[in-house]
Amino acid sequence: MSVNLTEPKSLLPVKGVRLSSITAGIKKNQTDDLVLIELAKNSQCAAVFTQNKFCAAPVTLAKKHLQAKVPRFLLINSGNANAGTGKKGMLDALESCELVAKQTNCAADEVLPFSTGVIGENLPVSKIAAALPELYCQLAEENWINAGRGIMTTDTKLKGISRQVELQGKIVTVTGLSKGAGMIQPNMATMLSYVATDAMIDKELLQQCLNSAVQLSFNSITVDSDTSTNDACVLIATGQANNEVITHKSSDEYQTLLDVITEVCLYLAQAIIRDAEGATKFVSLQVNTAGSINDARQVAYTVAHSPLVKTALFASDPNWGRILAAVGRAGVDFDIDKIQIYLDDVCIVSAGGRDAAYTEEQGQKVMNQQEIAIRIELNTGTHSACIWTSDLSYDYVKINSEYRS
Amino acid sequence: MSVNLTEPKSLLPVKGVRLSSITAGIKKNQTDDLVLIELAKNSQCAAVFTQNKFCAAPVTLAKKHLQAKVPRFLLINSGNANAGTGKKGMLDALESCELVAKQTNCAADEVLPFSTGVIGENLPVSKIAAALPELYCQLAEENWINAGRGIMTTDTKLKGISRQVELQGKIVTVTGLSKGAGMIQPNMATMLSYVATDAMIDKELLQQCLNSAVQLSFNSITVDSDTSTNDACVLIATGQANNEVITHKSSDEYQTLLDVITEVCLYLAQAIIRDAEGATKFVSLQVNTAGSINDARQVAYTVAHSPLVKTALFASDPNWGRILAAVGRAGVDFDIDKIQIYLDDVCIVSAGGRDAAYTEEQGQKVMNQQEIAIRIELNTGTHSACIWTSDLSYDYVKINSEYRS
Repeated sequence: MSVNLTEPKSLLPVKGVRLSSITAGIKKNQTDDLVLIELAKNSQCAAVFTQNKFCAAPVTLAKKHLQAKVPRFLLINSGNANAGTGKKGMLDALESCELVAKQTNCAADEVLPFSTGVIGENLPVSKIAAALPELYCQLAEENWINAGRGIMTTDTKLKGISRQVELQGKIVTVTGLSKGAGMIQPNMATMLSYVATDAMIDKELLQQCLNSAVQLSFNSITVDSDTSTNDACVLIATGQANNEVITHKSSDEYQTLLDVITEVCLYLAQAIIRDAEGATKFVSLQVNTAGSINDARQVAYTVAHSPLVKTALFASDPNWGRILAAVGRAGVDFDIDKIQIYLDDVCIVSAGGRDAAYTEEQGQKVMNQQEIAIRIELNTGTHSACIWTSDLSYDYVKINSEYRS
Repeated sequence: MSVNLTEPKSLLPVKGVRLSSITAGIKKNQTDDLVLIELAKNSQCAAVFTQNKFCAAPVTLAKKHLQAKVPRFLLINSGNANAGTGKKGMLDALESCELVAKQTNCAADEVLPFSTGVIGENLPVSKIAAALPELYCQLAEENWINAGRGIMTTDTKLKGISRQVELQGKIVTVTGLSKGAGMIQPNMATMLSYVATDAMIDKELLQQCLNSAVQLSFNSITVDSDTSTNDACVLIATGQANNEVITHKSSDEYQTLLDVITEVCLYLAQAIIRDAEGATKFVSLQVNTAGSINDARQVAYTVAHSPLVKTALFASDPNWGRILAAVGRAGVDFDIDKIQIYLDDVCIVSAGGRDAAYTEEQGQKVMNQQEIAIRIELNTGTHSACIWTSDLSYDYVKINSEYRS
């Protein structure tokens, strides 16, 4: 089940990026679970990673390798997170990189490892070793869809998108993939997401571009407030579009590229919410006229995490008292007589209570929709934030009480 | 359904406190929903209230009245929270107090009003007016059990307890009631709870005693992280045990009284968790060797609020990776190689991963229990905290998606 999410039929190749995917036997269900992505020489690569203290071994190693070299290969497995695996986990991640290096004739620290799946079980490195030769042989620019399937875990749908823009007369392509459906409250990072462009851009600027895009997309979603141990988002720029290298943040070209990358990231982040575990609703939480962006985000996340709000959303119940109670406990200063709360364009709360003109029928009509906007006007300042979330259904409980068994 | 919670067959009267309960028709299910508690003259009364900014009208009024006078009556209705009701809510709360004042010949500001139930509907004051004469007639010291039933909403069981201690050769009684099952993360307050003693104690000390007891009990529980708009905890001391008045915090008598009141509050707070909406498990989260009490509480609450930990508990699944991931995102500083996590006495995590001696069978055995202790040793300091929570089951979703309909 997902909320208004359609799988892409095709994705545009990005010159300089080749991909492949294979069933290595790491997942139990005999679907693809090992992906290799090759970056052409002279590519640039930026990344953000989970802030969870218990970050997985591949996260630690990928950060280290990214600092040392520009990567030539990304190796991604699903079905096993290689998290909470102590020293053995780090040795396994390193061995995976060494296997790729040997197969492809690059250095081990030119490989970034990524893992997603069950926490706390050792990575079956021998299965990776056995699958690598064929995986390497199958690298091709056309394999984005296959790679997207290979990184899925509890996702019900493939998440991917392509966009093109013109930079200085050259057509530039951006294609991105993401996976994720639960354990989702990315924090300065995302669930696994890989975005590539053939634009040519300075390395520092590429990282800034990713940071900006992530803040408004992957860092603005939550399913269940749980930040994964394995979140990562990678942005690759191969430079093969032959545009003039983008070196200034103030340039039109940077802004154009940032806009399209943000659009791709936002689509992918919202796709995660649309495919959230058990989701029957896609909910945007817009907080306006706040004293600071932090205040706005704190109110939005408090409402988005409230199990009572989420179950009311599941029930299509316009139980606005639960929204009001969540806003009230967010720890943000405001005057309760000045606040307004809206469901879409229906004002439900004003002057400290139910809006005088509000009728249950109006609220019910909005709540019956699959896509619902909750808007909160704090009237304490000029700042805004928007985040996206899902509801809390029987299926969320079912999926998460049966996941390991 | 509740976890190892037995209703009290009887509760000890407290000299100087009379109670009564009636079906006024505020609740839909035709059970008692209006309670009156009379405090004898010369009683003292302390209280703590919700920190939710959207606190209900009766909370605002009760705070004001408590500041003005020592109360003679508490009026409590269930079935309607009189929250999110704006100016009309305040007028209704005030009118309720005036009705009690007229009926009992006291002043309106000698009455504390309390409401619990659905948010956002106007209080049916006429039903209160109609029920008051009979409610007043039936006041009696023996009515604690009836009063306990009258304050229940989604509670499946009455929560009450009595204890006695000796102070300077006099037997002192403490009896308490609480209600609550959902929208539970009390914050410097509780769900509705009423505790009375016949001990004689200075008014200031009584408030300090309540603050201390609440911190270790009602402020250390969570069902769903949602702080109610109507939380309140009241501690009455009638002084009719004829002990010498307690005036010093350093006295043995104060300590004895504090201990028994804390015991009563802890029983009542844990009873709320045992009766939590949909609960199948009673879980204690003990965080030790933390750098500060705040750190310890933050880690405990992060784990307690994790939907993934809560669904794993429901499934009796020793999915310790989810506990580890929640600890890792708590925002507290520690060394992941030094942390230990235990299920009861079974060490599940050490040295950054699964404990070397841990077997799934050991974890499964603990998880199959109805009562589970999760213990986390941060090894960064000397502070500890313990909180109590429940699991996240199908029935939690069912109860909260059907509550209003």
